[in-house]
Amino acid sequence: MASEVPTRPSRRGLLAAAGGLVAAVGGGFAAGAAVPQAAKARAPVEPFFGAHQGGIVTPAQDHTYLAAFDLRTTKREDVMKLLRSWTDTAARMSLGAPAAPPAATLDAPGTDSDEALGLTPARLTVTFGFGAGLFEKAGKDRYGLAVVRPAALVDLPRFNGDQLVPTRTGGDLSVQACSDDPMVAFHAVRQLSRLAYDIAEIRWTQSGFQSRQAKGGTPRNLMGFKDGTHSPPQVDPVVWVGTEGPAWMQGGSYVVVRRIRMALEHWDRTNVGFQEQTLGRHKVSGAPLGLRDEFAPLRLDRADKDGNPIIPENAHVRLANAASNGGAEILRRGYSYNDGVNFTAERWPPWRQGMEYDAGLLFVAYQRDPRTGFVKIFENMAKFDMLNQFVTHTGGGLFACPGGVREGEFVGQRLFVGV
Amino acid sequence: MASEVPTRPSRRGLLAAAGGLVAAVGGGFAAGAAVPQAAKARAPVEPFFGAHQGGIVTPAQDHTYLAAFDLRTTKREDVMKLLRSWTDTAARMSLGAPAAPPAATLDAPGTDSDEALGLTPARLTVTFGFGAGLFEKAGKDRYGLAVVRPAALVDLPRFNGDQLVPTRTGGDLSVQACSDDPMVAFHAVRQLSRLAYDIAEIRWTQSGFQSRQAKGGTPRNLMGFKDGTHSPPQVDPVVWVGTEGPAWMQGGSYVVVRRIRMALEHWDRTNVGFQEQTLGRHKVSGAPLGLRDEFAPLRLDRADKDGNPIIPENAHVRLANAASNGGAEILRRGYSYNDGVNFTAERWPPWRQGMEYDAGLLFVAYQRDPRTGFVKIFENMAKFDMLNQFVTHTGGGLFACPGGVREGEFVGQRLFVGV
Repeated sequence: MASEVPTRPSRRGLLAAAGGLVAAVGGGFAAGAAVPQAAKARAPVEPFFGAHQGGIVTPAQDHTYLAAFDLRTTKREDVMKLLRSWTDTAARMSLGAPAAPPAATLDAPGTDSDEALGLTPARLTVTFGFGAGLFEKAGKDRYGLAVVRPAALVDLPRFNGDQLVPTRTGGDLSVQACSDDPMVAFHAVRQLSRLAYDIAEIRWTQSGFQSRQAKGGTPRNLMGFKDGTHSPPQVDPVVWVGTEGPAWMQGGSYVVVRRIRMALEHWDRTNVGFQEQTLGRHKVSGAPLGLRDEFAPLRLDRADKDGNPIIPENAHVRLANAASNGGAEILRRGYSYNDGVNFTAERWPPWRQGMEYDAGLLFVAYQRDPRTGFVKIFENMAKFDMLNQFVTHTGGGLFACPGGVREGEFVGQRLFVGV
Repeated sequence: MASEVPTRPSRRGLLAAAGGLVAAVGGGFAAGAAVPQAAKARAPVEPFFGAHQGGIVTPAQDHTYLAAFDLRTTKREDVMKLLRSWTDTAARMSLGAPAAPPAATLDAPGTDSDEALGLTPARLTVTFGFGAGLFEKAGKDRYGLAVVRPAALVDLPRFNGDQLVPTRTGGDLSVQACSDDPMVAFHAVRQLSRLAYDIAEIRWTQSGFQSRQAKGGTPRNLMGFKDGTHSPPQVDPVVWVGTEGPAWMQGGSYVVVRRIRMALEHWDRTNVGFQEQTLGRHKVSGAPLGLRDEFAPLRLDRADKDGNPIIPENAHVRLANAASNGGAEILRRGYSYNDGVNFTAERWPPWRQGMEYDAGLLFVAYQRDPRTGFVKIFENMAKFDMLNQFVTHTGGGLFACPGGVREGEFVGQRLFVGV
């Protein structure tokens, strides 16, 4: 016969019931303690504290959930308070602990919404970023930070072909959770959003996934091509802000996010040969056109017997290549997204009407300065890339991701010091 | 130096390049062959052929992508042709093979869109269902099948509280792909959709995920509660259509799908004690109220010292329980879904305006007859379940999933014989 407990458990009973998870991270949560002491983390765990934020050069997790927030408060103290609680909570969740120690009573909302109870953190990282709106918005210096807005945190120019939807674009703060478990990523954003009640509100979100190849190697995107064959020869100087930046950004990075819808119905009706000409790579192998090895150098100067370039002038890889952009490099960390289907009525022959996928690429790219990174690379691509026939940028943002957090600090703390 | 290949590979070159995957399933694809002979499947693989379709009693995979299709053709032969190609293609993909053998030329669209190249099938199952519209639609007997529409394939009544959006509801055919890899599930639906060009078109889709507990046991839903503690004591008589059904449905099942949005912002602001009263179970343990063991019988008759029931009269588990519904049982196989956020302006105090999650439960339930299954159970629940304050049914459908497929057959083939 099942043993009985009171319908309304005592504080002791509740803590005992919820205690399994707390115990699993080593116990020792004093109520209000910032971070568990000597936490015995439930593997697999990615470090939260360090010289850099997690989720930037961390090997890509399988799932992401990204949220951009609008600040609703007019008080600088509220922003600092929020960043403090976000930092402490993200650090806890990275270890697989709940957002906060369980409440002592059932007569209150839970301190955690509990959907991740019993899951591992699955390499959870939470990466925070600051949008231009933290510094100034509609001409207002809401928090006395306008004077310290970094020059690199530009207002992105309008690129050729941009169809950015305002409700999917921008935001004062960004939170990107990455985990091998989609529930863990959702859970993390949800807890941070709860902490933001009355201070900040979600503006837009985007989930994404990436599937690892069974035998390792470069993953494929929804176009069926390998995506990520090229990465910068040296990551550190491409990604991390150095002494050229303000103290709070040193060891940090700028992230450009673009929600890139792919016209998959058209792509799927396109000859594979033309797809390969468009990308400049072979579909199955990922090798540059005319070669067999995925990682062979592009050799943009190769020509056929008639003198025509093997990799077309407007092929994606040619225009994206560092050699075409004065050496500019970025670190991509993208995900595929699948947001179902929408009705479309096309404005060109044969005037197809019907459902189309709202699916494509959540482009996420890190760089030490977007002016010499994404902006420099994408200016030409936006105009000339053959791939533009099949993709539409429908949202995104630029966020300054502060340097890594030391225990006791909150993310971006040095931004608020002495201003 | 990388070796060079012609920019436009020969047939031999292309087949060789794409051949890695074909070889991985054992080769032997003759062009046009229905199913690979003696295929050496890439594990992990779920069987496609058998007495029942996969994806019904198959242990739940981590991800799903479900699509409902509207038939656009007026020809019965087109429908049969589509089901033939869907069957053959789903069988191939279940083994990790591409949708079809690679084409011999680059001057044609790919026979597969290739985003699953290099992935395992990750236990892919594809479950097909027939909506009422296959049999009759708007009074029309499009395919001469009206006379054999099973009585069990009812038009679902309008339930109390239903807010079904037409563009997320119904459909003539359903395809549910389940896999431990979200890319594999998307890929499967996409290939089948491509085969349907000019015959059927996607009407709506829904993706979902479910996270396995680190130590095993019942997974949690986005409300933070364990979901699925109760399952029918005997699955077979609950799920499978027997001799009471037409030949093509024997060994099949009826699936009710409901897209159930959860008001997570409200739920998260609700006291945990009230959440538990609403569900009738404890949040952390999953045990019936007042008990400690998740799997303890509900004992609906238990009362406190004042004679009030321990499990409230309108608690979710009481109303869902077989004892409250004349013994009615269904097999649930649900997933969580996360479709981002929407703007809402509430029509009740305090008239909150802002973003709300479009997230919740993709309810999927199988039964041998919906009249004595979901309809019977849900009639009362729709009216009285306390949980209704926090959930809204926004879409879904009822589909007859034919019995299992034998090699050489196509799914539902016996429906078309002799009518």
